[in-house]
Amino acid sequence: MIDPVALAQRLIAAESVTPARGPVFDVLEDALVPLGFAVDRFTVGEAPDGPVENMLAVRGDGPRHFAFAGHVDVVPAGEGWSPWSADIRDGLLYGRGAVDMKGAVAAFVAAASRSDVGTLSLIITGDEEGPATYGTRALIDRMATRRLVPDLCLVGEPTSTARLGDMVKIGRRGSVNIWIEVAGRQGHVAYPHLADNPIPRLVALLAAIEAVTLDDGTDWFQPSNIEITDITVGNPATNVIPAKASARISIRFNDRHTGDSLVARIAALAEKHGATVTARISGEAFLTAPGDFSTLVADAIQGVTGLVPDLSTTGGTSDARFLSKLCPVVEFGLLNATMHKVDEAVAVADLHRLTDIYAAIIDAALADAHL
Amino acid sequence: MIDPVALAQRLIAAESVTPARGPVFDVLEDALVPLGFAVDRFTVGEAPDGPVENMLAVRGDGPRHFAFAGHVDVVPAGEGWSPWSADIRDGLLYGRGAVDMKGAVAAFVAAASRSDVGTLSLIITGDEEGPATYGTRALIDRMATRRLVPDLCLVGEPTSTARLGDMVKIGRRGSVNIWIEVAGRQGHVAYPHLADNPIPRLVALLAAIEAVTLDDGTDWFQPSNIEITDITVGNPATNVIPAKASARISIRFNDRHTGDSLVARIAALAEKHGATVTARISGEAFLTAPGDFSTLVADAIQGVTGLVPDLSTTGGTSDARFLSKLCPVVEFGLLNATMHKVDEAVAVADLHRLTDIYAAIIDAALADAHL
Ligand SMILES: [Zn+2]
Ligand SMILES: [Zn+2]
Repeated sequence: MIDPVALAQRLIAAESVTPARGPVFDVLEDALVPLGFAVDRFTVGEAPDGPVENMLAVRGDGPRHFAFAGHVDVVPAGEGWSPWSADIRDGLLYGRGAVDMKGAVAAFVAAASRSDVGTLSLIITGDEEGPATYGTRALIDRMATRRLVPDLCLVGEPTSTARLGDMVKIGRRGSVNIWIEVAGRQGHVAYPHLADNPIPRLVALLAAIEAVTLDDGTDWFQPSNIEITDITVGNPATNVIPAKASARISIRFNDRHTGDSLVARIAALAEKHGATVTARISGEAFLTAPGDFSTLVADAIQGVTGLVPDLSTTGGTSDARFLSKLCPVVEFGLLNATMHKVDEAVAVADLHRLTDIYAAIIDAALADAHL
Repeated sequence: MIDPVALAQRLIAAESVTPARGPVFDVLEDALVPLGFAVDRFTVGEAPDGPVENMLAVRGDGPRHFAFAGHVDVVPAGEGWSPWSADIRDGLLYGRGAVDMKGAVAAFVAAASRSDVGTLSLIITGDEEGPATYGTRALIDRMATRRLVPDLCLVGEPTSTARLGDMVKIGRRGSVNIWIEVAGRQGHVAYPHLADNPIPRLVALLAAIEAVTLDDGTDWFQPSNIEITDITVGNPATNVIPAKASARISIRFNDRHTGDSLVARIAALAEKHGATVTARISGEAFLTAPGDFSTLVADAIQGVTGLVPDLSTTGGTSDARFLSKLCPVVEFGLLNATMHKVDEAVAVADLHRLTDIYAAIIDAALADAHL
């Protein structure tokens, strides 16, 4: 049986600022191979978004296939902090990745060391915190090639807020960024009739966008939301009417919309104001409707912690947006209060309890044939 | 009698990119002293807006005082042009400052060489094209100290458009730039309730400013006009709600407004949207109402060219905005088509005709005791 704390320390000690390759995967492979996992490591992509290392580890050939998805890359340390020592002080294990999410990876491996039924897989990327171009998407391609299709997938992101087990994510909003550009004709402010100021058209368009209500939310989702995140004109001269003006908006949307439908809607508004748009859809909304899988996870959490978790769809995007195309996905992991911060830390007791919860989830998921 | 063409060539040959000092003033002094002018040259100001050289040249002590105001600094040459040779080709004198406004200065000196009545002064700055902090304003201070108050002032800016004499300026709009800033609270787009996006407030304020009609113009002025000239957020991160947003507007206003009244009006609108403003008034509007002085100038133009000039208040600001506080000011000079451009040039014939016009203006202004 593997100790989740010791494994978490070894993973943290392997510096792995995104994109991660090499040593941190060596640590993971060394833990998984003795447990019977067949480890498939592969590196894909080129600069600037790659190369990225990924790992697909599979054990067993039972009819039920349960997958755990996660990442071993981390965000940079932050000012004045050396987070690779993985010290334990006052019951807390400090280090970059402690909660996001080397701690959860270690807990899942420890949980796997207590079980040997069914088919169990770990879908681990070295690029979740970066551009993620060659991360989980490449793993999904690899799984398709190998005809591996999990029945259920648990993503180990830190979903807990105040206490371990208080929140599970059953969906995520989608995300799209749209760049807006309005072209005009430069001129001198004293001769506005000879120029065409693009700013009033941009302002009118942005006011129209601000007036849009996308929806009022659903049973499981917050209302979709549009934020104007940037406006750029870049005109240093007080007496010059600029030639162009641009803006950027970010839309977080629930499952009443698709990225394409929102881009089309903004593009239509933009056209009315003589503006053009380009868009990048980061992910579609997904929902694993509350049901057997979320109940299974909630029961496991309640059995260990006594808490009944909230089933939430709040927060940013995660790699669950890709995995949800394969099978039902639920996200559950450690407390997210310190993630991406200086002095990121996990309670040692939480690592043990998370291991217990993950073990209960594995047992239930692989036992329950009707899921 | 001075030849305006030869003097214009000597002035152009003295490189004098703004702010101008030294040689170009030497050329002017050498021309004026033999005509009986007392030349007062002085240098004022410190970096970055100075030092600047200015010249006040006065001749005579008659009861009537007529002043000519102008500048001998020029804008830079522009790409691939060496404008200091002052060559004449096909009847055109080429060089930086040919029309704006060494040519007009030369024509006025030549006109002054034909007359010796009344009090005549030249108010010449080395910084009209630059920040103008220590230019005409310093000359006006100098005149106040010396208790010199002209009865009338002619500014030699190039006001003609298609033909010499087709336009005279009897006023200029005022100009004020206002910087607007909206403060918010930074956050993540996925958690907008924890942030306070300043952009929607800025957009609403700018839309309100766009909706303002300041006036419908007057008999002599175009409508006052507001242009939004810049918006800055400077947020490179697509998933971040920014902490602040700012904009800049430029107002060109007629004599129905003052700079202060407009700043107060925009500040009141800004306050409603939680924005703050800072302002810089470049100049107030002024009007020398059509009357004896403009008629005198128009008659002189018509006598030489046969044209009846338009009395206009269009265009940008000029140093006339400062001089108008002393006495009635009218602006008249060469064709402005090539000013500030590569291959700036003046027709040699226009220099002679402008000399004739200026001479007629001097005669009429110093003769006509009721003006
Ligand atoms: Zn993570
Ligand atoms: Zn000028």
